[in-house]
Amino acid sequence: MNSFGTLFKITLYGESHQDAIGIVIDGVTPGLKINWDKVRNDLALRRPGAVGTTPRVEKDEFEVTSGIFNGHATGSPIHLMIRNENVISKDYTHLRKQPRPGHADYVASIKYKGFQDYRGGGRFSGRLTAPIVAAGSIAKQMLPFKFSHQLIQVGSETNMDNLDAYLKKVAEQGESVGGIVEVRVSDMIVGIGEPMFEKLDAKIGQMMFSIPAVKGVEIGTGFSGATKFGSEFNDVYEDATGKTLTNHSGGVSGGISNGNDLVIKVFVKPTSSIGKSQTSFNLETQKKETFEVGGRHDTAIVRRVGIVLENAIAIVLADLYLWSKAYL
Amino acid sequence: MNSFGTLFKITLYGESHQDAIGIVIDGVTPGLKINWDKVRNDLALRRPGAVGTTPRVEKDEFEVTSGIFNGHATGSPIHLMIRNENVISKDYTHLRKQPRPGHADYVASIKYKGFQDYRGGGRFSGRLTAPIVAAGSIAKQMLPFKFSHQLIQVGSETNMDNLDAYLKKVAEQGESVGGIVEVRVSDMIVGIGEPMFEKLDAKIGQMMFSIPAVKGVEIGTGFSGATKFGSEFNDVYEDATGKTLTNHSGGVSGGISNGNDLVIKVFVKPTSSIGKSQTSFNLETQKKETFEVGGRHDTAIVRRVGIVLENAIAIVLADLYLWSKAYL
Amino acid sequence: MNSFGTLFKITLYGESHQDAIGIVIDGVTPGLKINWDKVRNDLALRRPGAVGTTPRVEKDEFEVTSGIFNGHATGSPIHLMIRNENVISKDYTHLRKQPRPGHADYVASIKYKGFQDYRGGGRFSGRLTAPIVAAGSIAKQMLPFKFSHQLIQVGSETNMDNLDAYLKKVAEQGESVGGIVEVRVSDMIVGIGEPMFEKLDAKIGQMMFSIPAVKGVEIGTGFSGATKFGSEFNDVYEDATGKTLTNHSGGVSGGISNGNDLVIKVFVKPTSSIGKSQTSFNLETQKKETFEVGGRHDTAIVRRVGIVLENAIAIVLADLYLWSKAYL
Amino acid sequence: MNSFGTLFKITLYGESHQDAIGIVIDGVTPGLKINWDKVRNDLALRRPGAVGTTPRVEKDEFEVTSGIFNGHATGSPIHLMIRNENVISKDYTHLRKQPRPGHADYVASIKYKGFQDYRGGGRFSGRLTAPIVAAGSIAKQMLPFKFSHQLIQVGSETNMDNLDAYLKKVAEQGESVGGIVEVRVSDMIVGIGEPMFEKLDAKIGQMMFSIPAVKGVEIGTGFSGATKFGSEFNDVYEDATGKTLTNHSGGVSGGISNGNDLVIKVFVKPTSSIGKSQTSFNLETQKKETFEVGGRHDTAIVRRVGIVLENAIAIVLADLYLWSKAYL
Repeated sequence: MNSFGTLFKITLYGESHQDAIGIVIDGVTPGLKINWDKVRNDLALRRPGAVGTTPRVEKDEFEVTSGIFNGHATGSPIHLMIRNENVISKDYTHLRKQPRPGHADYVASIKYKGFQDYRGGGRFSGRLTAPIVAAGSIAKQMLPFKFSHQLIQVGSETNMDNLDAYLKKVAEQGESVGGIVEVRVSDMIVGIGEPMFEKLDAKIGQMMFSIPAVKGVEIGTGFSGATKFGSEFNDVYEDATGKTLTNHSGGVSGGISNGNDLVIKVFVKPTSSIGKSQTSFNLETQKKETFEVGGRHDTAIVRRVGIVLENAIAIVLADLYLWSKAYL
Repeated sequence: MNSFGTLFKITLYGESHQDAIGIVIDGVTPGLKINWDKVRNDLALRRPGAVGTTPRVEKDEFEVTSGIFNGHATGSPIHLMIRNENVISKDYTHLRKQPRPGHADYVASIKYKGFQDYRGGGRFSGRLTAPIVAAGSIAKQMLPFKFSHQLIQVGSETNMDNLDAYLKKVAEQGESVGGIVEVRVSDMIVGIGEPMFEKLDAKIGQMMFSIPAVKGVEIGTGFSGATKFGSEFNDVYEDATGKTLTNHSGGVSGGISNGNDLVIKVFVKPTSSIGKSQTSFNLETQKKETFEVGGRHDTAIVRRVGIVLENAIAIVLADLYLWSKAYL
Repeated sequence: MNSFGTLFKITLYGESHQDAIGIVIDGVTPGLKINWDKVRNDLALRRPGAVGTTPRVEKDEFEVTSGIFNGHATGSPIHLMIRNENVISKDYTHLRKQPRPGHADYVASIKYKGFQDYRGGGRFSGRLTAPIVAAGSIAKQMLPFKFSHQLIQVGSETNMDNLDAYLKKVAEQGESVGGIVEVRVSDMIVGIGEPMFEKLDAKIGQMMFSIPAVKGVEIGTGFSGATKFGSEFNDVYEDATGKTLTNHSGGVSGGISNGNDLVIKVFVKPTSSIGKSQTSFNLETQKKETFEVGGRHDTAIVRRVGIVLENAIAIVLADLYLWSKAYL
Repeated sequence: MNSFGTLFKITLYGESHQDAIGIVIDGVTPGLKINWDKVRNDLALRRPGAVGTTPRVEKDEFEVTSGIFNGHATGSPIHLMIRNENVISKDYTHLRKQPRPGHADYVASIKYKGFQDYRGGGRFSGRLTAPIVAAGSIAKQMLPFKFSHQLIQVGSETNMDNLDAYLKKVAEQGESVGGIVEVRVSDMIVGIGEPMFEKLDAKIGQMMFSIPAVKGVEIGTGFSGATKFGSEFNDVYEDATGKTLTNHSGGVSGGISNGNDLVIKVFVKPTSSIGKSQTSFNLETQKKETFEVGGRHDTAIVRRVGIVLENAIAIVLADLYLWSKAYL
């Protein structure tokens, strides 16, 4: 349940307000010299700070307890742990009786019979994405590909230069917004992805929807391609390397990378926690009541999620890359 | 690679133009009395016939060689096999030198070193979805939920009453179109889905992108929700059963079913094979050349894919449903 | 449950008295030219015929419906099916009330709530090992290693030259016997096996105990090594290739192949079906009663199981061999 | 590789001389109130102290960073970590050139290209079994069964009352010995184990051979049953609950628990590290040379391994127990 991958395999643990979160990373090539600054830089990209992000700032200082010897990966699992430090837990006791709209409080309470750690979203917290960023950062160092991501849309704003002003206004209204992020992988090779159910896009789909707040995934052009004719949508091969003129298919044919840029667009829903008062059913009083979500939260979590999505995709690619090597 | 699921597990085999395609279905509840007419009806929904569908009509008569005794599932794997009969293989020899745009010919040729069965798309053929339909039909019989699907858009047409006329015109131009299908699961219960990477939406995402031609997946409102504020997007709980007024989250909170209808929207790209002549790089002559795709094909594969998506989702649900029972 | 392996993965189906048994083999190297005569020869080694083996002789003619094109593996799953032909089902109806000692009748009846196909042992039948032999025969063709097996002991007989006479006598008494088989893999390389739980011996252990009637497994010297001192048991390295003077460890160090012969000894229990009358509890009359097992059976199933064990080990090795290539 | 199980799933990390070893335990029933004293007691049973055990004593104080809230399991993974404290690393540098007989030095060096952490056996160290003991201790608290283990033989000694004197003598000779441990699980129920490859004995076999130094596994009577006739070996059912007069099958029929005591016998090889000088090939000088293994070690690791085997079997049972519940 909390593991992903086969040859490059991560196992995640932790809850928002317990002692630590962490990840066990299995399958890192023995001998890989890991650049930890890159890991720290990627974690920094995820951390809040910009307009529209939460005031709960964790330093995300991690400890690596195993799997590294003399600076190189040993071939044993790497265990990386991040202590939870900036934790304020008093805000959350009311969640047991009045589940917050958009959050997992209600389902967790039923599924885990009330035993879940409900503080700060518990295991459903976006905080759990920090170890994924770290693991993905290592994955990128194993791969010959180039990774990047960009914001395409935030709320109704599509000009990212206006973003700070736009988000300020949203926050002032006690509101939140979602948005769309594009992840791109360049310098791809042909042949990554295993039909039928370990297809490159299938595993990316699984991984993307594993990230909290993701509610839509497109490979290439996606939904807007519904209005296109086949002759427009088909990507025409230009040369023997498989390069195509257009890239409507987002670099994936039949579930296998075709050498063109991998392009994934992800919809991240508006942050569920908002400043405004909302209504929700109160399980104690048995009626709908107005309430306000306490705690600290992001106006636009989408602003921080790009590096999470990028690195999560790197984890998928590391696994399937190793996989493809097995049959060479 | 060709298996999906853990407790309800399918293993798929077959290629478009070889002797048979089939599926091994493991984890069917012992004692389940399978209604084979329902399986046949679902297979019929996938078969061509309507305007915009291919003239290659397979009877899809299946043989069940094991796992059933006196009409009931024994608890052993059920093996269901469909012979390929209406096969015309002479059309495909040219694919080795000139890969068809939009198809997997090129990547397969690299990945499988030229040894793949390229006839009729081989293992990448939509024909492989027939056993998935059959398995999903059995999955639905194990589950207390109600499944349905509907076409939302085909090409630029959103009024399904106009569809036959619209597709006739598309076909006359030698073109193809894609579209959007919505699958809905009603009478859901709370608690299906296992965080972190076996989330309900994560497994649905994996499964949907495993189906040929799928290039986009949304849970609930999806991408169009980017312009909504948090207060609009959040689904407000109405009562103690978890029913919400709106369903922007598509029945999934934190990767777990919340009791509301599960709503999945899927983008299916325009059929890659078109009547019109196209260009593609010729690996023999080493230049781009005009060519025409031979064979028989669908103008709008999206018209047949609804039952595939619906039943594929049933397979995901059967697996996670059994999973949730283990912890009760 | 009915699948084994990751990169080389088999999925087994079938029951003794239903239409067919078969196997889906995923992960065969694309381009491998399979020698089907070798597969047939291995299946012949498993078939009865010798003294002490059952008169139910199946031809084991198999059909390959997919995964092969122009004589080569395509990279898609290979599906191989064997029809059950020499089936006499009338003998088995009484098993529902009086479970046979040594057989799975009783546990199957509880676990599968009476819905299991009890005829001829159903899914617990040794017949299910035929597809494993076939898959292992293909696995051996993928591997650079040399496989063999030999009988070490049958009942109290350790001189295999006396075997026919010995087994004749056992059969005349209405008895059965078990025995010990040794499988040996030569021309091994160093490095096959993945710690911690995918160790070479761990996966062999799992596979061996998956074969019906196996109740003991040793790697190398095994239990008799309990009386040895460390200085005697330790295998001393002779040269840079890792060759050792002795081979008490059976070719496995720390779960990884060490380049010496892989030596596995397997205990196969006496055939449960015997000619003699036995007692067992009758669930109908609710008392212990004498009865005779009907049907046709082997006096010494151990005489046929060697090729099953050998080929099952080849399946394990194929999987871990591909696995080790992924990290090169 | 470092994960085991499906519904109850452990992921192990750590190396003997790095900062910590630990385990992520996924699938603990939400709400389980864990008795940590039991965990500590089990860890104490594994710790050295008795005659014949190593002077490296670790306190095995563990930290639980997640998965527990108000004393109960939350349903999220439990992460348990043990710091390595009593570490003396200077002893191990010579292992790179002269691999110790019986150890994994040589294979690790090849497989991990020299990057493995060779200090104290690295990941191959018996130290890694401490987290397995802890996880198994939790598993036992989830299960209604009763677990025990006993030493059957140590070296040539079968009277455990003489053991201290015997081991003193062995140690004085600079020797080591192995032995045989029996694990027994009582109060079993019928139906645990999933044919074909997730059989109860198959998974136990995999798990037992995953434990360092295990080189033989028997279910029930085992190898000595080779001389028995079928009429002697068959366990006769006494009543409707499945109880049998004898228990040659060790509580497993057809891979499924039959309600009788589960009996597993395990051969543990003599400790590879001995006081006596030995010879081994020196990769630097390219000839066989005498050497002495430094460091601290057990004369009879078998004396400490019983609780490891018992708890490792509990992990297998927890997984298959949850599994069997899914199909109820």
